[in-house]
Amino acid sequence: MNIEVSNAKGTHDWLPQEYQMRNRLTAIIKSFFERFGFVGIETPALERTDTLLGKYGEEGDKLIFKILPRGAKLNEWLQHPDPLHHVNQYAEESLRYDLTVPFARFVVQHRHQLYFPFKRYQIQPVWRADRPQKGRYREFYQCDADIIGSPSLLNEVELIQLYDKVFHALHLNVIIKINHRKLLAGLAEIIKAPDKLIPLTVALDKLDKIGPDGVKEELRSQGFSSEQIHTIAPLLTEKEQNSIDFLINYFKDTSSAQQGLEELHYVIHTTKTLGLSGSQLIPDLMLARGLNYYTGCIFEVQAEGIQFGSIGGGGRYDNLTGIFGLPGVSGVGISFGIDRIIDVLKETGKSEVLLEPDKKIKCLIANFGEKEIQQLLPLIAHLRQTTLAFEVYPDAVKLKKQLQYAHHKSIPYVLLAGETELNKNSVIIKNMVSGEQKEITLEKVITYLQQLP
Amino acid sequence: MNIEVSNAKGTHDWLPQEYQMRNRLTAIIKSFFERFGFVGIETPALERTDTLLGKYGEEGDKLIFKILPRGAKLNEWLQHPDPLHHVNQYAEESLRYDLTVPFARFVVQHRHQLYFPFKRYQIQPVWRADRPQKGRYREFYQCDADIIGSPSLLNEVELIQLYDKVFHALHLNVIIKINHRKLLAGLAEIIKAPDKLIPLTVALDKLDKIGPDGVKEELRSQGFSSEQIHTIAPLLTEKEQNSIDFLINYFKDTSSAQQGLEELHYVIHTTKTLGLSGSQLIPDLMLARGLNYYTGCIFEVQAEGIQFGSIGGGGRYDNLTGIFGLPGVSGVGISFGIDRIIDVLKETGKSEVLLEPDKKIKCLIANFGEKEIQQLLPLIAHLRQTTLAFEVYPDAVKLKKQLQYAHHKSIPYVLLAGETELNKNSVIIKNMVSGEQKEITLEKVITYLQQLP
Repeated sequence: MNIEVSNAKGTHDWLPQEYQMRNRLTAIIKSFFERFGFVGIETPALERTDTLLGKYGEEGDKLIFKILPRGAKLNEWLQHPDPLHHVNQYAEESLRYDLTVPFARFVVQHRHQLYFPFKRYQIQPVWRADRPQKGRYREFYQCDADIIGSPSLLNEVELIQLYDKVFHALHLNVIIKINHRKLLAGLAEIIKAPDKLIPLTVALDKLDKIGPDGVKEELRSQGFSSEQIHTIAPLLTEKEQNSIDFLINYFKDTSSAQQGLEELHYVIHTTKTLGLSGSQLIPDLMLARGLNYYTGCIFEVQAEGIQFGSIGGGGRYDNLTGIFGLPGVSGVGISFGIDRIIDVLKETGKSEVLLEPDKKIKCLIANFGEKEIQQLLPLIAHLRQTTLAFEVYPDAVKLKKQLQYAHHKSIPYVLLAGETELNKNSVIIKNMVSGEQKEITLEKVITYLQQLP
Repeated sequence: MNIEVSNAKGTHDWLPQEYQMRNRLTAIIKSFFERFGFVGIETPALERTDTLLGKYGEEGDKLIFKILPRGAKLNEWLQHPDPLHHVNQYAEESLRYDLTVPFARFVVQHRHQLYFPFKRYQIQPVWRADRPQKGRYREFYQCDADIIGSPSLLNEVELIQLYDKVFHALHLNVIIKINHRKLLAGLAEIIKAPDKLIPLTVALDKLDKIGPDGVKEELRSQGFSSEQIHTIAPLLTEKEQNSIDFLINYFKDTSSAQQGLEELHYVIHTTKTLGLSGSQLIPDLMLARGLNYYTGCIFEVQAEGIQFGSIGGGGRYDNLTGIFGLPGVSGVGISFGIDRIIDVLKETGKSEVLLEPDKKIKCLIANFGEKEIQQLLPLIAHLRQTTLAFEVYPDAVKLKKQLQYAHHKSIPYVLLAGETELNKNSVIIKNMVSGEQKEITLEKVITYLQQLP
């Protein structure tokens, strides 16, 4: 037999254990989202192509999965003299590339039904036609929390607290890096290249990956002069810039950086007063975050003591809904890198917190045959009245196979009721760990099972 | 300002309240799935086009959303002399149309990692390029539970129990209709049209929608003779066929129906012995279920006393994984119609059970300005050490606006701490329902809030 089945390229299934871990992780994150007053929403996977295009830069646009036109529309397109250059006109729907642009669309579309400041969370998959790599999929979950319609820096403080509480609950010590876009603009001013802010930040952002020499090389290839690179160089190698005092001194003569400095100082100071459970908040001038829509504070989270890249990030954007014609709505948000967090927990031996099922099956009722099962029906009916989780093995196969099933599903007790026991109005409860067997009369089974650990 | 934003055709957003209701409903269903020993899995939205095509009939195939090829592949396709007839060769990925075919693919692909009988649940959206109608979307959730690898009828009995427990928890009395595909085959034998089983079942299935005359008309148009229709006619109008005794008598001389009769009898009898909480199990020979892969018992659930169509359905299929080269694996499954169940709960005034948030925000800390907030930071820090859910209003806007925010989010208490109160080391807790205000010293705030209802 030649079985040839596989997932679509770059996608993967969630097997029971993986599903459970992700589910438990998102349940923990959700409970903190709700404790901080965020409400959940969802947007559809399919968005209008014109909603998504032009929001992620040229590279991003190329990675958007578009839907093939159907029926008459497909015909019409294929008969067009130049179908290739009219794709977007005919492929009207696409799969969302992230949760942020659909959320901006959502806010503008439903603005009269929402109450501001609007705090929402959203946990859904996104799709990117990237070249698949180990650990990087074309379909993956994003998990975002945003506050829309409030310019207050208390929101930044709250989001840092939220990161801290969640990672503390996961027994993970993290470093929350913080920077401000206006400091990056200040740096561009210092090197007299305010028009080159984007290539500058893109290059700086790669410091962790490609090192100081790599960044210099990248800056050179982007047309920065030796003098400019010389001015930036100390920032790439010296660690002292990771303090607010250093930054205040570095930017003291740079007017465009002052607002950023003040805001950063406020957020760091207020967070310090509130205290963090197991996280460190560290300013990092090299933190740039890829996305261009950030305008204020930006964050990135890394697990302490493990090289793993970022497990979360976010920032303030002053005009996200402006792309849909509603300007002047400030927002700030963070996201949790679900897959990466699971990887870090596995790597550090802390994934057990995600492995406890919600409703653990306590007992498997073994199947000795139709006659025995019929005699057990009253007991089964009573058991189903309780909240006790149990299973009836459906087939009267060899007991060994049934015990293996219990073992495989980590079911701690098996109820054995053969003809001999039932004639005595009793059953045997087998402890799957110790192997111990205990005979219990039928009317005492439920109480007995309930008091077992 | 001309804002023109909208969802992709036939899709919709889940606003906070709708999201919460769906989420709460699936949480309830999930908890019963797990109590019955089902484990959760997920499959990706994107499947290989050749995995999906040919599984849903010609009409179904037309409704599959295919992904547009990208880059060189798109070029190649558009330069093909006959691109229209080579779509499936180039559009390699599609969006899943249901959860069943991807699950069959999953079982075959991972068969060496799964332990059988394998009991899985899956709650994910599916996509169908149907003509959008009121209440029918192109992207909607399905919620399935299946047992694979066990021919035992105890599985059918368990699934009926599962339906009963879930709908009982939702305070919904339902009618679970049950039929058997082999009885429909027997009916085809009685009218001497065994080759016309599919058009026969499709026509009978429409009885609820188009009535007896409609079904007769449909049978006529499908080429059934007047004599054949005459034989079927009593089944369309008389209600007595809804009993197992009637069916045993009706099919007593029809050999092909005997296995179906026995199985149906066993399932009904065993379920009766176990007892149902608030559901009725009723045999219905007119129940056919659209999908052709069913081979044994079939189910459909309707809310009692309300015309609303089916809110769940399922059945036994003997060879689903056969389409992927793994024959002989029997399975049985049911699904819950999430959207319809929510509609029924709303319609019958029972949706409140879905409206209680998991973590209800208990208190809003009003914002009187930067100075006051800084003085409150130690209290906020202490509050965050507890599991109490609260929010800090981020902006120092007019108190009226802040109270409206609390009202809108149904937050029962607002903490007011202006300069006067803070100078006395106290705060005011305002009850948003009664309007009552109580002054509390700072050190007693947490204990006070915790003991409030």
